[in-house]
Amino acid sequence: MTSQHRIAPAAPVARTVLTPLDTTSVTIDGGFWAHQQSMNRDSFIPHCDSSLERVGWVENFRAAVRGTLETDRVGRLFTDSEIYKTMEAMAWEIVREESTELRARLAELVDLVASAQADDGYLNTFYGYDGGPDRYTDFEWGHELYCAGHALQAVVAVERALGAFDPTAMRFTEVGRRLADHICREFGEGGREAICGHPEIETALVELYRSTGEERYLEQARLFVERRGHQSLRDTMYGGRDYYQDNVPVRDAEVLVGHSVRALYLATGALDVAVETGDRELLAAVGRQYDRTLERRTYLTGGMGSNHHGEAYGEDFELPSDRAYAETCAAIASIHLAWRLLLATGEEWYADIIERTLYNSVISSPSLDGLTFFYVNTLHRRSPGVEPEPGQSLRRTDGTRASWYTTSCCPTNFARTIASLGGYVATVDGEGVQLHQFVHGTVDVVFGEERRARLAVETGYPFDGTVSIRVVETDDAEWTLSVRIPGWADDVAVITPDGADVHGPGRASFTRVWRAGDVVRLELPMEARIVTADPRIDDVRGSVAVERGPLVYAIESVDQPDLDLDRVRWSGADALSVQPGSGVLDGIPTLTTTAAVIDEPESAWPYRIAAGSETGDRSVPLTLIPYYAWANRGSSSMRVWIPAVR
Amino acid sequence: MTSQHRIAPAAPVARTVLTPLDTTSVTIDGGFWAHQQSMNRDSFIPHCDSSLERVGWVENFRAAVRGTLETDRVGRLFTDSEIYKTMEAMAWEIVREESTELRARLAELVDLVASAQADDGYLNTFYGYDGGPDRYTDFEWGHELYCAGHALQAVVAVERALGAFDPTAMRFTEVGRRLADHICREFGEGGREAICGHPEIETALVELYRSTGEERYLEQARLFVERRGHQSLRDTMYGGRDYYQDNVPVRDAEVLVGHSVRALYLATGALDVAVETGDRELLAAVGRQYDRTLERRTYLTGGMGSNHHGEAYGEDFELPSDRAYAETCAAIASIHLAWRLLLATGEEWYADIIERTLYNSVISSPSLDGLTFFYVNTLHRRSPGVEPEPGQSLRRTDGTRASWYTTSCCPTNFARTIASLGGYVATVDGEGVQLHQFVHGTVDVVFGEERRARLAVETGYPFDGTVSIRVVETDDAEWTLSVRIPGWADDVAVITPDGADVHGPGRASFTRVWRAGDVVRLELPMEARIVTADPRIDDVRGSVAVERGPLVYAIESVDQPDLDLDRVRWSGADALSVQPGSGVLDGIPTLTTTAAVIDEPESAWPYRIAAGSETGDRSVPLTLIPYYAWANRGSSSMRVWIPAVR
Repeated sequence: MTSQHRIAPAAPVARTVLTPLDTTSVTIDGGFWAHQQSMNRDSFIPHCDSSLERVGWVENFRAAVRGTLETDRVGRLFTDSEIYKTMEAMAWEIVREESTELRARLAELVDLVASAQADDGYLNTFYGYDGGPDRYTDFEWGHELYCAGHALQAVVAVERALGAFDPTAMRFTEVGRRLADHICREFGEGGREAICGHPEIETALVELYRSTGEERYLEQARLFVERRGHQSLRDTMYGGRDYYQDNVPVRDAEVLVGHSVRALYLATGALDVAVETGDRELLAAVGRQYDRTLERRTYLTGGMGSNHHGEAYGEDFELPSDRAYAETCAAIASIHLAWRLLLATGEEWYADIIERTLYNSVISSPSLDGLTFFYVNTLHRRSPGVEPEPGQSLRRTDGTRASWYTTSCCPTNFARTIASLGGYVATVDGEGVQLHQFVHGTVDVVFGEERRARLAVETGYPFDGTVSIRVVETDDAEWTLSVRIPGWADDVAVITPDGADVHGPGRASFTRVWRAGDVVRLELPMEARIVTADPRIDDVRGSVAVERGPLVYAIESVDQPDLDLDRVRWSGADALSVQPGSGVLDGIPTLTTTAAVIDEPESAWPYRIAAGSETGDRSVPLTLIPYYAWANRGSSSMRVWIPAVR
Repeated sequence: MTSQHRIAPAAPVARTVLTPLDTTSVTIDGGFWAHQQSMNRDSFIPHCDSSLERVGWVENFRAAVRGTLETDRVGRLFTDSEIYKTMEAMAWEIVREESTELRARLAELVDLVASAQADDGYLNTFYGYDGGPDRYTDFEWGHELYCAGHALQAVVAVERALGAFDPTAMRFTEVGRRLADHICREFGEGGREAICGHPEIETALVELYRSTGEERYLEQARLFVERRGHQSLRDTMYGGRDYYQDNVPVRDAEVLVGHSVRALYLATGALDVAVETGDRELLAAVGRQYDRTLERRTYLTGGMGSNHHGEAYGEDFELPSDRAYAETCAAIASIHLAWRLLLATGEEWYADIIERTLYNSVISSPSLDGLTFFYVNTLHRRSPGVEPEPGQSLRRTDGTRASWYTTSCCPTNFARTIASLGGYVATVDGEGVQLHQFVHGTVDVVFGEERRARLAVETGYPFDGTVSIRVVETDDAEWTLSVRIPGWADDVAVITPDGADVHGPGRASFTRVWRAGDVVRLELPMEARIVTADPRIDDVRGSVAVERGPLVYAIESVDQPDLDLDRVRWSGADALSVQPGSGVLDGIPTLTTTAAVIDEPESAWPYRIAAGSETGDRSVPLTLIPYYAWANRGSSSMRVWIPAVR
């Protein structure tokens, strides 16, 4: 528990404005996130692990060891990466709460992966065996360096979680070093002048550099970033080379384009390179691109990607609700990038984005029972989707959650994110500690010259707005306790031992000599908020959405079975009142109000000479639920945005 | 020029409510469509022909004759079909206006295609040669029967155009019969129980049956229609088997789904089968599906297909302007289907749809100079698109027109449609003649018991609303002259020799003993119309579009270079006034008015606590042009729908 041995995800070696904590520094022991983490441990991670066995993607490694890939290989070319992400989830989970079973399983998987590695360090079950495609023959779609990147991220996670001298970690780190050395030989100066169609290797190599101190890994990451954007990859049918960000060099781009997950993984890697090499121009470029993306290409939920075609960003303000792709993995990648920008710039705005994305685009993925997942997080479902049979692999856009997908990147990505969530809660700097996310638990920090403090946070967030931060341990010198005031929260009352005051969005900081037992209490306003969108977002022009705390709300047909949701109009006639959820929504606050309905007649042609105003034909009761909780009560239609009467 | 030898496209043998004319029956000799047809002859058809040579798709047939396909085959697997559609265009063009050059070229192509045909009748340059894929190994994506269908349609067109005893026609008909016989052997009762992923063979076989009288071709078409919808094709990533209409049997479907061109070609073939076999249930099913599609899945322009992903129909009311795919070929296919429904039901509504689609989704494809084409006809272009170099093949969705595409189905489809346009102008029944489309020219008809009449139509349509129909020749008995009153036109004044009267939408019929020199004159209202959309179309809710006559109008950045079109608001403060177009828009009426602009401030996050009304911040002049004429003055942004102040 020292700041020397940083085990959080994405811990820069170079000095940043804010410094991350070890994941052991934060213990989540109650409330919303403790529930999510225990679901992750008891349900999501075992589900990923058993699914990977069931579909044969782990077995591919055994076939590699046996030398029978030619006859036995199953699954698409990127399935190896799912094993690595699951291993990463296991590693973070072990450090969160000890488990001999998980340790044993992780050791078994490390052993298997190590055995499957080629003598020269290459590691991939899809390429380079008799009867399979040759190595490095398809940079556009091959995903080889993408898989390698996830392998390296798992290596780093295992080493950070189990410690550098744990035998499993030692064995896996050796795998990672040999793989990274192989990549440096193949793709370093004088080697292949190539990049991978799917970025991921860049951030992974920087993380391995952070773990091992090997500067050539950082240099290789830098090379991959600089090589990109020079049209070395072939044209695609998905918006050309923008699809994999190979049209414009990273430092010249103005906004994120193309396949959203690719764009965000690349930006994350580029930012890692910028931070560790002190490249301020590159840091500014990535920040500018992300800011512009937040300004014009992001859904209210924090989701990214508005084109199903190419799983891609649309143009500025092209954000249709019903075609929101908003892939779960893109939301997770956006959190990775926002976190790095928070550390690099100290701007609390990025913690706001993490919060919004986490509550409305990440936890929307799994069902409340943890058994099925959304790949795509739409904001408008016009007609009820098909519900898959248990175990059935549905297409990713069919509208309801499935237990597994042919491309199953999201469940494993979700598992590793929830297991490592503690890493995103707080940071330190020379003066003290900053609390960015409101979780019920304890925060142990080391800051400045080996100074220590321990905080206990009590909160019913996100459903309740009171956040109580108690100083449990402290030294006798002055230090600063900072808390994020969310961007959505005007006029937050903060009660400190020195009195009460009101603070606007950003960061509220309190400097004093703290005593054990001192409490800082935030009273966040939990009135429902009616929000509108920039009118250039055509799809939701003249519509409102409802937020409460960090949660975006939605209407679902289950709660108003006699209504066509697409005929509901926001009248603003009545206030929204909070109700306790029931059934599977037990413990989740819902909102009720009245709304108008327009009884638009059906007609043979949906366009007609301009009619009068649309004031609604009758009044109906309306129930809203948190967006993330939709589609848990059978097949349904849903809307986040509700057109206002006019 | 008898009703025995019907040479129009899609002429049923079975009795229908309305009977089509020969294409020679209608001569377009002035005005809008004479200009389009001479462009087609002088520019589009030569462009298609020379492009097909340039890219090597004609050469593939020569390689087939030489036996060098293994080394020489170029282009995607459906390129053969483009040669056939161009041959069809040539055939219709020869019958429209004699040309020895076109005759010679067509004979050369027929000779080439005939020489490339295999001994057993099979005809395709992509399959079945050494080094190429085997025949009939990929029904999902192979396009073999699709290409065969276009070959048969060309065969029928050449025979109808040149006459059954023309040597070129005789040779080509022999090719068609051998090909169709091969297909009946392979896919008939007891043969392969298969269908083609891309429908087209169905309507083509019925047309060949109509030309040859061979009932087994009709039976084979019927088999293909009945086999569809039983999930014999594999699942796709584009919305599953809906993509190629293989989820639900044709007679059970409720609405058109999946890839729009596929859906419409299939519906057209199914309707042809229904008409010729007297299958009233199938006829009703297809009519119901198309009506529902018009009601809920069609753009204001008549365009169809709102998903780029899979080039597909969206759900009901999922009609985003900026992602309108609205492929030119889908518009043409929609006209094919509407025409057949007009004949089968006699409902003028389908002629309205033909008009709307023709003026706003078909002629929007070529540039005004006839040198470049849109594949996709979007209704909203947010930022100016890339302009291709002459001859450069752009991706189909890049926003401006290109001279050719890797998949170049639209230019050749356009060429055959414009050349055969006369076939869609008028029909006859036992009582007289029905004029459905307003073109400047003459209409010679034979109706009833070999009765004849000749009409001369004078009009400046679609820019002018006066349509003057003069009886040039007639017998002395009573007959009925009917004219379509467009659905957009309330209260049309019709002046006949018996006086003037006012008629609403539908068909106005005048029965009398006609004299040569008698005139029926329509005065169609040419005031600009402000239309709104069903509010369930989210993207355009609260917006207006402007129509004048049959034309949909749009705003283009070229006319208001200082405005961000996405900030323009319809205020309705001033009337629209008609102006003469200038430059490349010479002769094309434009509209001017004033509009409001909202100066929405940029913000780091595009969502905010509900603001007040959106009344606009200032007033600006606004120019509208016919939608079809956009993107002819350099790269630009464009909107059809303009949000109204609120």
